Amino acid sequence: MNRPRARELGIDIGIFNQGSHNAITDVPGVAVGSATLIEGEGPLVPGKGPVRTGVTVVLPHGGNLFREKVQAGCFVLNGFGKSAGLHQIRELGTIETPIALTNTLNVSAVADALVERSCAASPEIGIGTGTVNPVVGDINDGYLNDIQGRHVKKEHVFAALAAAKGGPVAEGNVGGGTGCSCLGFKGGIGGSSRVLPARLGGWTVGVLAQTNFGGMLTVNGAPVGRELGVYDFAPPTKVAPPAAPRSETVIAGDGSCMIVIATDAPLDARLLTRVARRAGLGMARTGFYSSNGSGDFFIAFSTANRLPHLGSARLDGARLHERTVVADDDMSAIFAATVEAVEESVINSLLAAETMTGRDGNLRRALDPGELVTILDKYNARGWAKKLPPFGNPD
Amino acid sequence: MNRPRARELGIDIGIFNQGSHNAITDVPGVAVGSATLIEGEGPLVPGKGPVRTGVTVVLPHGGNLFREKVQAGCFVLNGFGKSAGLHQIRELGTIETPIALTNTLNVSAVADALVERSCAASPEIGIGTGTVNPVVGDINDGYLNDIQGRHVKKEHVFAALAAAKGGPVAEGNVGGGTGCSCLGFKGGIGGSSRVLPARLGGWTVGVLAQTNFGGMLTVNGAPVGRELGVYDFAPPTKVAPPAAPRSETVIAGDGSCMIVIATDAPLDARLLTRVARRAGLGMARTGFYSSNGSGDFFIAFSTANRLPHLGSARLDGARLHERTVVADDDMSAIFAATVEAVEESVINSLLAAETMTGRDGNLRRALDPGELVTILDKYNARGWAKKLPPFGNPD
Amino acid sequence: MNRPRARELGIDIGIFNQGSHNAITDVPGVAVGSATLIEGEGPLVPGKGPVRTGVTVVLPHGGNLFREKVQAGCFVLNGFGKSAGLHQIRELGTIETPIALTNTLNVSAVADALVERSCAASPEIGIGTGTVNPVVGDINDGYLNDIQGRHVKKEHVFAALAAAKGGPVAEGNVGGGTGCSCLGFKGGIGGSSRVLPARLGGWTVGVLAQTNFGGMLTVNGAPVGRELGVYDFAPPTKVAPPAAPRSETVIAGDGSCMIVIATDAPLDARLLTRVARRAGLGMARTGFYSSNGSGDFFIAFSTANRLPHLGSARLDGARLHERTVVADDDMSAIFAATVEAVEESVINSLLAAETMTGRDGNLRRALDPGELVTILDKYNARGWAKKLPPFGNPD
Amino acid sequence: MNRPRARELGIDIGIFNQGSHNAITDVPGVAVGSATLIEGEGPLVPGKGPVRTGVTVVLPHGGNLFREKVQAGCFVLNGFGKSAGLHQIRELGTIETPIALTNTLNVSAVADALVERSCAASPEIGIGTGTVNPVVGDINDGYLNDIQGRHVKKEHVFAALAAAKGGPVAEGNVGGGTGCSCLGFKGGIGGSSRVLPARLGGWTVGVLAQTNFGGMLTVNGAPVGRELGVYDFAPPTKVAPPAAPRSETVIAGDGSCMIVIATDAPLDARLLTRVARRAGLGMARTGFYSSNGSGDFFIAFSTANRLPHLGSARLDGARLHERTVVADDDMSAIFAATVEAVEESVINSLLAAETMTGRDGNLRRALDPGELVTILDKYNARGWAKKLPPFGNPD
Repeated sequence: MNRPRARELGIDIGIFNQGSHNAITDVPGVAVGSATLIEGEGPLVPGKGPVRTGVTVVLPHGGNLFREKVQAGCFVLNGFGKSAGLHQIRELGTIETPIALTNTLNVSAVADALVERSCAASPEIGIGTGTVNPVVGDINDGYLNDIQGRHVKKEHVFAALAAAKGGPVAEGNVGGGTGCSCLGFKGGIGGSSRVLPARLGGWTVGVLAQTNFGGMLTVNGAPVGRELGVYDFAPPTKVAPPAAPRSETVIAGDGSCMIVIATDAPLDARLLTRVARRAGLGMARTGFYSSNGSGDFFIAFSTANRLPHLGSARLDGARLHERTVVADDDMSAIFAATVEAVEESVINSLLAAETMTGRDGNLRRALDPGELVTILDKYNARGWAKKLPPFGNPD
Repeated sequence: MNRPRARELGIDIGIFNQGSHNAITDVPGVAVGSATLIEGEGPLVPGKGPVRTGVTVVLPHGGNLFREKVQAGCFVLNGFGKSAGLHQIRELGTIETPIALTNTLNVSAVADALVERSCAASPEIGIGTGTVNPVVGDINDGYLNDIQGRHVKKEHVFAALAAAKGGPVAEGNVGGGTGCSCLGFKGGIGGSSRVLPARLGGWTVGVLAQTNFGGMLTVNGAPVGRELGVYDFAPPTKVAPPAAPRSETVIAGDGSCMIVIATDAPLDARLLTRVARRAGLGMARTGFYSSNGSGDFFIAFSTANRLPHLGSARLDGARLHERTVVADDDMSAIFAATVEAVEESVINSLLAAETMTGRDGNLRRALDPGELVTILDKYNARGWAKKLPPFGNPD
Repeated sequence: MNRPRARELGIDIGIFNQGSHNAITDVPGVAVGSATLIEGEGPLVPGKGPVRTGVTVVLPHGGNLFREKVQAGCFVLNGFGKSAGLHQIRELGTIETPIALTNTLNVSAVADALVERSCAASPEIGIGTGTVNPVVGDINDGYLNDIQGRHVKKEHVFAALAAAKGGPVAEGNVGGGTGCSCLGFKGGIGGSSRVLPARLGGWTVGVLAQTNFGGMLTVNGAPVGRELGVYDFAPPTKVAPPAAPRSETVIAGDGSCMIVIATDAPLDARLLTRVARRAGLGMARTGFYSSNGSGDFFIAFSTANRLPHLGSARLDGARLHERTVVADDDMSAIFAATVEAVEESVINSLLAAETMTGRDGNLRRALDPGELVTILDKYNARGWAKKLPPFGNPD
Repeated sequence: MNRPRARELGIDIGIFNQGSHNAITDVPGVAVGSATLIEGEGPLVPGKGPVRTGVTVVLPHGGNLFREKVQAGCFVLNGFGKSAGLHQIRELGTIETPIALTNTLNVSAVADALVERSCAASPEIGIGTGTVNPVVGDINDGYLNDIQGRHVKKEHVFAALAAAKGGPVAEGNVGGGTGCSCLGFKGGIGGSSRVLPARLGGWTVGVLAQTNFGGMLTVNGAPVGRELGVYDFAPPTKVAPPAAPRSETVIAGDGSCMIVIATDAPLDARLLTRVARRAGLGMARTGFYSSNGSGDFFIAFSTANRLPHLGSARLDGARLHERTVVADDDMSAIFAATVEAVEESVINSLLAAETMTGRDGNLRRALDPGELVTILDKYNARGWAKKLPPFGNPD
């Protein structure tokens, strides 16, 4: 299927330019890969299926991440989730494995696979040096998937790693996005990027989102979810309402969201934490309100200033790192670009995801591009790049 | 002047109903008062003027707050600010003075006035018992105001306290909002409220905002700021651009935002912290992205379950509090209501604020209601309450 | 082996009384179980051994923890660790699985086993309701153990759960403590408890520690590590120095510490977080300074006020919990008791652990009770309960 | 009076060497000044006296701090306090005013004085640039002092600033320490420092503490407080017990502690936050347990890598800072030195402080050096530098 992305529908979000792939891979060196598991139909048999899940990995660079770490920050807007690795990111400000996104009950198996792969690449782990900190984000795809089955195995993680590459990123029902529900529609993986003009630093900010949260879909302000009667607390008369009965609330209206943000701007852990803290603002513009069950975890890393695990030789005194860091006063454009790219990533995830029937025949309809366009036009919400004043500071 | 509020212009934000005053005072017992300082014109003479500032106080209840504390939580989205009292809120989960909002360099004088007033009302403070924790939020009004002059004195705090009352809340260029700039326009004090239907608990959530931040004004999705050429990083050709030159960035594009959220839902400190963490999501829908200089501090309190300072008699063993607390699974509607009310509070602050000329002739134009309506209609962004499916779960 | 505990050697720590087992199990309903893996000798063959590791589980009560959660708080003093489950504890203030302690690279397998067991007991997980949050703490036992081998499998977790019981708790080289090194000596599992007098509430505070950290052993102030020449930054002339060469620093001088604190005092998540934040103070009295590589994670829970997952029937409005909570002003004795019990837990872990030879013949000597007593007597550090003024507030 | 410091009594704490003044001023460029207010006797007349309070300032360097900021971090172990300025330290990682320590109800007046002084030195504040963030720590000296009187005025702050200098630091009943009570004795200002050997970096760590907390005094492990019957929860038979009756608990057993840590090691905000987080560990070794009412706030700054407020000229793109930063793996010695220096600072504060009678004749006895030595000798707690193995890594 060749579903359109937001810009192809004339949905212009924000004022900054996109990168060439409009994806996290626009940050040089970043690669993404997914393994998708779709098997079986009909009634749920826990442990057997049906299976609608997977794993997506983001590689900050193509080398040995344990030996050449990247600086990172993270922010937990809503801690109702089971992600792995964030405490060490907070403490040390680095990431030393790929970042994997999967479903909640599969966090352990996926983290274990990352450990196995790290040990294979860096046999010194835990022997002459410290151990390794796998980073895994999670959402609950239990509305469509046999989540108790924990079907993502290490070979799927290895397959996703092997498939990782730069360039265009597969979106929608792939990898960790396979079984996602978002804003009452089929969610999944989505991405976007922004490139700042040279006078604001010229850096790229790229985003990859795994969208599985509740709210009321809003696209460039147009109240799409409300027009379609698909939103939390909506009247129980149209499409299977996401918020009632109760058991559905947890699965559809709730859920979670993982956002991964990459940049080549030279940011340290504190600044990357500031960046991560803005991700929810972009989500909010799509109708997100961080419902009770929405575990919302945001991770940001910089590909600049890699940190060697075993450093330069320690001659006299302690080892020092030399770092270049953006001044706080010049962070605002990076923040604004992050918010824009997150917003567009959510919309792209919805556009790419196709209707899916999962366990027990549970159905999650895709957002229909035709219906969407009709509604957007009713609200004059397309074509803004041409109609409205642009970003005003050409280089 | 009698400027319209959002709903009077047909701007219907969200799906939940408003309270009778559409203000924080819809939470029974909550009172608000302001003291406004406008004096002088012309060139800035630090310490002399011109003066465009003030103080606004929110009283959680009408009794002795030190002796009957309210439970509270807070969240700092961007810590670039000088607010007072939040550490103790985090630790003990209570508020024991009115919450005052003023300008950054006046935090000290205002906090000191709250201490003085508390000691007068509760002479036991610091003698036979602990001390008192004044809570003050701040924004930078230095674009219009002689901020170095620190013109808010204790008598102004006392005047604001004396003026505090329930019912409609004065908005715009009043109290702590007097010198505010928001999204490139004149900002100020704004408020809103939501009342949940009985089956979602029936509680009221009320908001008061002091709006002084940058971004690109968006109203129900309509790109108002962009239409008017007034936004951060905008072309430098129209209205004095908020983001350039540099000195303006700090004053106009940056700034800060204080949000106070009240509810009569029986929430403890942890739940109120969860509520406070959502305030930025409502702001984001108005075009906010939390720029570098935006100190964004959010405080939430509950009027239920007051906690006595000197408790019940301690007979055998330690003293216990009995509390009723909403289950986390039923918090989502409170979160959604908070996001809606914050969004509308920002819009109301802009609508109420009038054009102001301040120090050095610095001008901050008001958002023009006529222009606004024209733009909103271009984007079909009005009258949604009648046109669109309502909240779907009538009692 | 029947090694003495601290009090049996006349080491009286603090002023409050111990519970009958001087263990976390003195809190009614709490159970502890361990599975210990010791296999092979000689050179390290990653994946094969030698194996010196295990898993220890703490059960807050004997029922279905997913359906009857306990309130909890946590604190991360040093986030250089890979523990699972703490984000959700912070957000929701509850624990819904046993707490498992193991080695760092085994966190995933252990968490997965907890998930499997939870799903078996509560088939509704992830289907008609939310998912489950496994809680696992970790240390690095790589100095003695083939840590890359990840030898703890789900059957070991199940065995530890099956073995869990109240009463005396096995200490030293058992379960998650099997491969621990602490303060240059053999570390392991240790515990202690305190019972407050009735006038301070009468509650019990119990502690279980997994000790694997660096520093300089101090027992009731006596500089034991320094007397024995075994401490971080010590002269490289005696017992294999823990801090040099570099590769040893990570393994011996660093490491980590997990502390689990249980109480029957009716504390909510905020108060339990306050309790958890004090654990490091007890550790500090034993010579701990939280070295760079020391991932120090503390978890506290209360057995009072269990929270049902699917609550009481929701009739009208949202569901409410009724809670009894200790007043903050009466928390000091609970804090002091926690600090004492943590301190003694560390000492007990060292006394119980026996000398162990692990991978590559790496040797970690036990603290010798005879040597210890000799040093303690040199510093008059024994028999304080009889020699010194007692706790002064008999009931 | 010429009271001895710890080392002069043969109390050797830890293994690292002290700097030449054994004070925070051993970090080159750091200066300290105090203004001490002692006036009146007899019954408390709120607003009139008796007065037993003051203010102490720490200057990270002798230049314009607003224009040349220092990097900083902070940690709040117990947020029951009213300190000013910590949010912005957390967000931006810098300090731009002197750090002032005073009593709780005087935080506002002292912060205001810092603002006034900053504006005088940097007239651009709040006009062409951002505002200034005063940093003030606080303790409750209400047991001895007419705290409601808020007797510290701006002229006292200016006097303390004018008196600030390097070299030996006045300790005990001076400045912000004037009215302190600590561990049941007279507390006050105390300091210490450590100099790392060259092979561990050669840096200096200096500490200044304002000690006003409860617990049971322990000196190199000797149970001094217990020997003297002066400790929280002690028998009510000897010296006025600090923990009973209730009103005394708050004043004596509780209180607070501010710790300021300076270093010339090139640390960024994240690393300085890690340093600050260790301060409580040093306090714990003196008998501290962070009682409910103990507001414990720790601030660390580095004199290396000053950050200019208005940076280098912005030519193309955003401005960058170049920074040298210690590798995390080499932080352990800095952490250990911090813990030692904090511990000794507390002891020095007690030794320097003299017996004081305050409001209502309230008496706080000094720790008697003779009694102390007698007890220490009973526990062989003196002369360790000569008796015990030294730090083992001479350069």
